[in-house]
Amino acid sequence: VTPAAESPLAAQLSERAQRAGAAYAGPGAGHDVPQGDRPPIAFTGGLPDPGLLPAERLAEATADVLRTDGNDALQYGGAQGWAGLREWLAERWSAKDAVALTPSHFTLTNGSAGALANVCETFVDPTDIVGVEAFSFPGSVRAIRSFTPRIECLPLDDDGLDVDALEALLRDLERRGERMRLLYTIATFHNPTGSTLSVARRQRLIDLCTRHDVLIAEDDAYGELFFGDEPPPSLYSLAGGKGVVKLGSFSKIVAPGLRVGWSQAEPAVVDALVATRSDLGTSPLLIRVLSRFLAEGFEEHLAGLRHAYAGKCRSMLDALGEHCAGTATWNQPGGGFFVWVTLREHVTPDALADACPAEGVSFVGGHVFSSERIAGDGRRMAWGPGDSRFLRLAFSYVAGDTIPEGILRLGAVLSRAAQMPQSMAPLS
Amino acid sequence: VTPAAESPLAAQLSERAQRAGAAYAGPGAGHDVPQGDRPPIAFTGGLPDPGLLPAERLAEATADVLRTDGNDALQYGGAQGWAGLREWLAERWSAKDAVALTPSHFTLTNGSAGALANVCETFVDPTDIVGVEAFSFPGSVRAIRSFTPRIECLPLDDDGLDVDALEALLRDLERRGERMRLLYTIATFHNPTGSTLSVARRQRLIDLCTRHDVLIAEDDAYGELFFGDEPPPSLYSLAGGKGVVKLGSFSKIVAPGLRVGWSQAEPAVVDALVATRSDLGTSPLLIRVLSRFLAEGFEEHLAGLRHAYAGKCRSMLDALGEHCAGTATWNQPGGGFFVWVTLREHVTPDALADACPAEGVSFVGGHVFSSERIAGDGRRMAWGPGDSRFLRLAFSYVAGDTIPEGILRLGAVLSRAAQMPQSMAPLS
Repeated sequence: VTPAAESPLAAQLSERAQRAGAAYAGPGAGHDVPQGDRPPIAFTGGLPDPGLLPAERLAEATADVLRTDGNDALQYGGAQGWAGLREWLAERWSAKDAVALTPSHFTLTNGSAGALANVCETFVDPTDIVGVEAFSFPGSVRAIRSFTPRIECLPLDDDGLDVDALEALLRDLERRGERMRLLYTIATFHNPTGSTLSVARRQRLIDLCTRHDVLIAEDDAYGELFFGDEPPPSLYSLAGGKGVVKLGSFSKIVAPGLRVGWSQAEPAVVDALVATRSDLGTSPLLIRVLSRFLAEGFEEHLAGLRHAYAGKCRSMLDALGEHCAGTATWNQPGGGFFVWVTLREHVTPDALADACPAEGVSFVGGHVFSSERIAGDGRRMAWGPGDSRFLRLAFSYVAGDTIPEGILRLGAVLSRAAQMPQSMAPLS
Repeated sequence: VTPAAESPLAAQLSERAQRAGAAYAGPGAGHDVPQGDRPPIAFTGGLPDPGLLPAERLAEATADVLRTDGNDALQYGGAQGWAGLREWLAERWSAKDAVALTPSHFTLTNGSAGALANVCETFVDPTDIVGVEAFSFPGSVRAIRSFTPRIECLPLDDDGLDVDALEALLRDLERRGERMRLLYTIATFHNPTGSTLSVARRQRLIDLCTRHDVLIAEDDAYGELFFGDEPPPSLYSLAGGKGVVKLGSFSKIVAPGLRVGWSQAEPAVVDALVATRSDLGTSPLLIRVLSRFLAEGFEEHLAGLRHAYAGKCRSMLDALGEHCAGTATWNQPGGGFFVWVTLREHVTPDALADACPAEGVSFVGGHVFSSERIAGDGRRMAWGPGDSRFLRLAFSYVAGDTIPEGILRLGAVLSRAAQMPQSMAPLS
């Protein structure tokens, strides 16, 4: 990567582009996963299973929309997005969130990533403080960082965000005459850790944010994909809709390639989000296609997804127990796409990076999800020897029948790494 | 409109949201066209003719893409957008712009509106000065205003932007130790005035911007829709690709509802645009559908659009000559969607607004496109008695066979207004 910081262009970039890391863009940016001797079984991508993408039904829905509603679907559709899909969302989430919602509580966005950018552009100035979990989805932290360099990273554990740490931080900020403007949290089936915020912590988090006037951006990309019991009520639900923007997405439950998500918030907040946006709205064609798709058999579709991902998760957990119990520990996710692995102390990440490629398995090192690193310089990081003892394993995308073999290989990697000289050094 | 400025929410808005006018959002925002006794023949919307939207072929292309390439189309597609469509753009525009272009010269965006927002977020800070034409597309000026309040409005005439005025402004800024960061211009088949920047002015504009280090954002939404001769070479072409970002769109030549456009610029600039963007890219499904659509018969499709819009424009100009020659003058657009009408001095806008509804014709008052008004407070303006003697007539969307009757009604409106007492007052 040649930092454009050395080029004349860097001097032309906006402060926002510099914070977004544009000065470091160029060939080689992004994850540079080492390639080994045989094609890896890849636990890398947080993507839906290709076999679960409803391609045929989306083609039928598109044909139907274009035949019956072609002009509305192909003209401009407005910044808030077609009311028909917002009515569907209002009905569904009124029931699930136990709050009376109308189409005015929703605005349709370019995925939940577009929703988060819209929330930030509407509510975050470059002098504002935003809280995030210490491990988080890097795309979100990078987006937030483009709006403000002042990011506070909060620890999290198996029960989600550490609310004591949040309280201490908010009090400390108050003492210094400052405040947190926005708290971004993935409370349910967290990416990358798979953790879910407990109900008790949810309630305390809402109380704290209410008292300290902190807007909550609740990223709920995975909440529909539970494997057993339904997850706890959303922050939006527990807060009665006040002070929370819930970011929703069809990426995990229909298809990422539609790039359709939404923000759910009080109508006055939604009005502000809509007014601040300037790209003339998300495709009215795709919004109508989704709406048509959702009108029939959606519960069966969702049940199928839950069943399939639960099975893949189970398969991964079983194989981990068989092959990795001596070298690592991991969580038991209640839903979502990810298992978060913690290496035992006698395996260092350096040794791991050396041992990995030859075995034909790949995953994402935990350091890639370190909010502190992303907040620190906004630079996209290459995979490699690092400073974390965590791995994210995605079971969602990989072919289900290769999961046991992939984890067998991972076990071999971990055992081999544990015997390498680098692993004699203490963990950084 | 109840200004949210009076609500607690207003204090929470980012500076950007405040500049975007979010404090004024809410019911009643937008154009409030007076309704009369009979349904108006509407010359209001700058939209494609519904009969020219290729709904059936897009449905076929979607089915084809989802059958043969469903997984790539339905997963994430990256921030720059699928290379296949960028290759098509590179080939087409290398020929038309006479510059050697590669896929690295393009990034696909959520319409050209998304492209402009992306250019602004990458290059414009809130302290920067941006130049725009004194009449322009309000969505663009409003977007720019959300990034900086420092907007300079440049006069334009039948030959486009007044380059003498630009030179005077740039010199004045230089004397004050300031500079213009970005110049946004619709050089070809301008919205709303229909004017096209002459070749001589294009060359001078590039020389001035090069000398004063001003980045040019060239909005080329209408350039493909010429009625006779091709328009002059783009600014991008004349500048050899240096210092210009050309904003392209499929909205006018395929369909707005796809929300796909692009930025065309030097690869280093494109890299910065891509790195700054945070919504995970434009729908890879729609990008592939477009690509499939463009692969066959696109020249015939374009020729059909040019022929149809040329006919509708001719029909409007003929009818104006017949019914409005005594009360107004107008330009002869070489392409695009709009005729720009200048009222003769004995017709005031106030009288016009009073006379209009009963006749059953509608259009957009020129004041709606006044960059100075939009830059002044960012507030969305209602149609009504105003401060301009200009009208924008769109011939694109209205049914072609109703144009003569619509202009007949407009003529009646103008004649009636000319005899109303308000018109005795001098023009403001």
